[in-house]
Amino acid sequence: LDYQHVQVPFEITLWIMLASLAKIGFHLYNKLPSVVPESCLLIFVGLIMGGIIYGLNDRSPPVMDSDIFFLYLLPPIVLDAGYFMPSRPFFENIGTILLYAVVGTIWNVFGIGFSLYGICQVKAFRLQDVSLLHNLLFGSLIAAVDPVAVLAVFEEIHVNEKLHILVFGESLLNDAVTVVLYKLFRSFCEMPTIKSVDVFAGVGKFFVVGLGGVLVGLSFGFTAAFTTRFTKDIRVIEPLFVFLYSYLSYLTAEMFHLSGIVAIISCAMGMKRYVEANISLKSHTTVKYFMKMWSSVSDTLIFIFLGVSTIGENHEWNWPYICFTVIFCLIWRALGVLVLTFFVNRFHVNTITSKDQFIIAYGGLRGAICFSLVFLLPDFHRKKLFIAATTVVILFTVFVQGMTIRPLVDLLAVKRKRESAPTVGEQIHIRFLDHLLAGIEDISGHWGQYYWKDKLEYFNSKYLQKILLREYDQPKSSIVLLYEKLERKHAIELAQAGQLGHGPAHPSFLCSAFLCSSSDRTVITDQKLEETPNPDVLDNMQEILARNLYRIRRTGPAYSRHTLPGDSEPTEQAKEILILRHKNL
Amino acid sequence: LDYQHVQVPFEITLWIMLASLAKIGFHLYNKLPSVVPESCLLIFVGLIMGGIIYGLNDRSPPVMDSDIFFLYLLPPIVLDAGYFMPSRPFFENIGTILLYAVVGTIWNVFGIGFSLYGICQVKAFRLQDVSLLHNLLFGSLIAAVDPVAVLAVFEEIHVNEKLHILVFGESLLNDAVTVVLYKLFRSFCEMPTIKSVDVFAGVGKFFVVGLGGVLVGLSFGFTAAFTTRFTKDIRVIEPLFVFLYSYLSYLTAEMFHLSGIVAIISCAMGMKRYVEANISLKSHTTVKYFMKMWSSVSDTLIFIFLGVSTIGENHEWNWPYICFTVIFCLIWRALGVLVLTFFVNRFHVNTITSKDQFIIAYGGLRGAICFSLVFLLPDFHRKKLFIAATTVVILFTVFVQGMTIRPLVDLLAVKRKRESAPTVGEQIHIRFLDHLLAGIEDISGHWGQYYWKDKLEYFNSKYLQKILLREYDQPKSSIVLLYEKLERKHAIELAQAGQLGHGPAHPSFLCSAFLCSSSDRTVITDQKLEETPNPDVLDNMQEILARNLYRIRRTGPAYSRHTLPGDSEPTEQAKEILILRHKNL
Repeated sequence: LDYQHVQVPFEITLWIMLASLAKIGFHLYNKLPSVVPESCLLIFVGLIMGGIIYGLNDRSPPVMDSDIFFLYLLPPIVLDAGYFMPSRPFFENIGTILLYAVVGTIWNVFGIGFSLYGICQVKAFRLQDVSLLHNLLFGSLIAAVDPVAVLAVFEEIHVNEKLHILVFGESLLNDAVTVVLYKLFRSFCEMPTIKSVDVFAGVGKFFVVGLGGVLVGLSFGFTAAFTTRFTKDIRVIEPLFVFLYSYLSYLTAEMFHLSGIVAIISCAMGMKRYVEANISLKSHTTVKYFMKMWSSVSDTLIFIFLGVSTIGENHEWNWPYICFTVIFCLIWRALGVLVLTFFVNRFHVNTITSKDQFIIAYGGLRGAICFSLVFLLPDFHRKKLFIAATTVVILFTVFVQGMTIRPLVDLLAVKRKRESAPTVGEQIHIRFLDHLLAGIEDISGHWGQYYWKDKLEYFNSKYLQKILLREYDQPKSSIVLLYEKLERKHAIELAQAGQLGHGPAHPSFLCSAFLCSSSDRTVITDQKLEETPNPDVLDNMQEILARNLYRIRRTGPAYSRHTLPGDSEPTEQAKEILILRHKNL
Repeated sequence: LDYQHVQVPFEITLWIMLASLAKIGFHLYNKLPSVVPESCLLIFVGLIMGGIIYGLNDRSPPVMDSDIFFLYLLPPIVLDAGYFMPSRPFFENIGTILLYAVVGTIWNVFGIGFSLYGICQVKAFRLQDVSLLHNLLFGSLIAAVDPVAVLAVFEEIHVNEKLHILVFGESLLNDAVTVVLYKLFRSFCEMPTIKSVDVFAGVGKFFVVGLGGVLVGLSFGFTAAFTTRFTKDIRVIEPLFVFLYSYLSYLTAEMFHLSGIVAIISCAMGMKRYVEANISLKSHTTVKYFMKMWSSVSDTLIFIFLGVSTIGENHEWNWPYICFTVIFCLIWRALGVLVLTFFVNRFHVNTITSKDQFIIAYGGLRGAICFSLVFLLPDFHRKKLFIAATTVVILFTVFVQGMTIRPLVDLLAVKRKRESAPTVGEQIHIRFLDHLLAGIEDISGHWGQYYWKDKLEYFNSKYLQKILLREYDQPKSSIVLLYEKLERKHAIELAQAGQLGHGPAHPSFLCSAFLCSSSDRTVITDQKLEETPNPDVLDNMQEILARNLYRIRRTGPAYSRHTLPGDSEPTEQAKEILILRHKNL
């Protein structure tokens, strides 16, 4: 037996296997995951595992290595989040998200830090040796909302898209703030005296870390898109580039002490559009599938490790400090959300309701990032106290808040996510209004989001697409592409039902039959068709209209991290379309 | 700048990136890969890289770590080879393959070992300090044909399936022999005296190592199939199990000193059938795509590393020893193939021609496995000589033999692979003959391969399928499945051409039209249809017949490691079918 030789890959494989089997186990009992979030179950499995290891070895089980977490487990989750990020709600709310992520996080850090310092001054608690700087350092690591925990919980409760993107976007973008503040306080702790210059340098660093991350991410993203221009003959390695470049962007950002999370998200969002157009359909399926798979496994492993690492003798228990940490985390987040939302609502027509505010505050879950950061702290005599407090905060937020948020959402009747994506009619109107608003903003001289969006789109079609896309001709509009996708699905449905039409569907006959059946709705279009006999335009029009006749068609379910779009789509839909078609003729 | 922190993943990612970009580079110039095999180009890139590293650092570039090779680079390639192994030709020639792999390899080991020992006795060469055991040890690592090198070359020259499977199968299965002999001679080298018991134990080990590998592989394969029964609700992690279980089988086998290559191949071949039936279509696409991608990258990295490791000061140059090694490798392989084929041909009707024998002998390429094994040798004063000789043999076989084998195949007019897979008509006949031969063997009491195949199929459908498949009802025959697949593709083609029939293709009308058009061929079937009005049977018949009407339809291109089936298939085919269909009506 030669275990040493294969130990590393063997144990990694076994852990992944355990994680996957645990997932299968939960889903075998359908009722369990609908009551308890999967993250709680996984931590529970981890606790049991940790207990077994502790019992057998009689020493603390290994804690999750911070390097493994930041270098191998976190990137797949963030990549997945960035790649499947719904860009419209994200950019529509970018101002609010940034406000929560930057100002909100700073507010929380200083609020928690100073109030814990206040607690430390109470002599009865025996905490007078914890300095203000150490409290602020602790505040900087405990304040940040965790994207992994937020995703795990919010995906299951299906709140409306705006609410989701506000909490989720905040949890992603606060990474830049956390990185800066954490490193700042850590270096302050080691400095003998702090000059005011250092404080100003810290403020300047925010911009460097955040914008630097965006820059690194975008440059790698565009390089990735450019590389996939040349993969036509070796389709098989196309998916690799998506993963390699995004991972490189993360590592490069980390190397220069920039925000890796921000970098990988910018990379994914920057490349997505061009890569999708360049690579083959099968490559794209593989990319999407593997991203989901990887992030799902990483996420599972993180929660299991979190459970395992909790067991052991790393903790120093001090009731007041730990209890007050939990209380302050809740209070300062609630206050922060209230105050910030007050300002946000003054400048927006579409306000954030008080129910939404409550869910934003309540959804501020902490997770593995805090946990890894607290283990990365330099050794000092109260480190074990901080570890204990962090563990309690994480378990409290994941278990108590995570398990009660769903009943609360039900109770408060928070606006839910609409189950179906907008119809094409709606999409056309939205696009029309976008153009209109861009025009209004241009005329009125108000350079708002629509103006910039329009400019960006112009720049994209004028320069970027020519460089980054392989076949650059007039690109098809997304609606036409959607129609093609639906038509393909419909054809597959027909083939599976064994009803593929063998009759020669003569175009003109088809066309007239189609126009006849939809005559009541297409009067205007008909006239337009007569004026513009351009066959391309005509085809597109027909496609758009044909699409619009069935209101129930969806453009794919709204984003969720553990399913692939189209996977859960009911087959009834396609059959319904088939029946409607037959009736039309 | 914090390079230390990200060094390991960063450098791994960069190497993979280099490999992928090199692949893109070669394919940009279409003419290059058609003259020089990709493996040569990659070694060449590696040599340049190694030269640069050597020039900059002024010390030998790092050699390929044997652990990295055996634990991380080799498994994906072997998994891919096993998963896409054409099982019929493999099992039809299993006897010949085993003969080449076991007897042939032993022959080569002793042949090369003893004759090199003879060379060492010549005083002028100054090699008298190399003992017989060391020569045999060297023989055991240099004798084995390398699957990676064979795949890389044979995939590009498209020889007939039997010839391919003989060389490729041998290169895979000789691993068991190599492992045993290499370890045996290595331990003999360290022993003071060798007892005859040890020699017999070595012979017994062959069976343990080989059959143990098969056993480990099959048990993991069936466990994998069993696991995928329960993944219906979490499709996204399905592909993971295929990779995890096969990798575990490899690691477990290596742990117990069994043949990891044999284990992973058995695992892949054992699970394939059941896993494919259990997992979703998208999961299966991902599995296939990722396997291809991974093996392609591994393969690229291996050849680049081979090039890099060649540069440096690890070599001791001794002209006679190195030249005679190359010569003996060629001579003993040629003799071995001649002798063994003489016996094989005596017992087979379908003989191996002398042209085929030449290609089998000439295709005995050495590669990275020899290279890794020679670096694993315990330190002794002539290790550098062995490294030099191994490097020369590898470069000679890959460059000289690899580059000349294609012109030789053309020159000798060796029978090529048929470009199209057998038609359904042929497939039906083959299956019919299989049943017939199984019956004949059963009656005559001769338990040959058809008898055992029949028994295995019975056992499979009676027990294995019930345990391992999720939805166990009467499984569809592969021909019906094929028809469904083709119909699906056809539908997609129709949709893309915008000609999807909207008319309600009435089944009875369709049926009559169909039977009418093919009346000349279906007289017998028609009668049979009247006798058996079972609608299921009728549907299947029609499907089979409809399939058979177009001779040009292919079941997918024959196996190749770098393309996915169906990826390169011309779209003309589907259009032709469409036109024929229209004509029929």
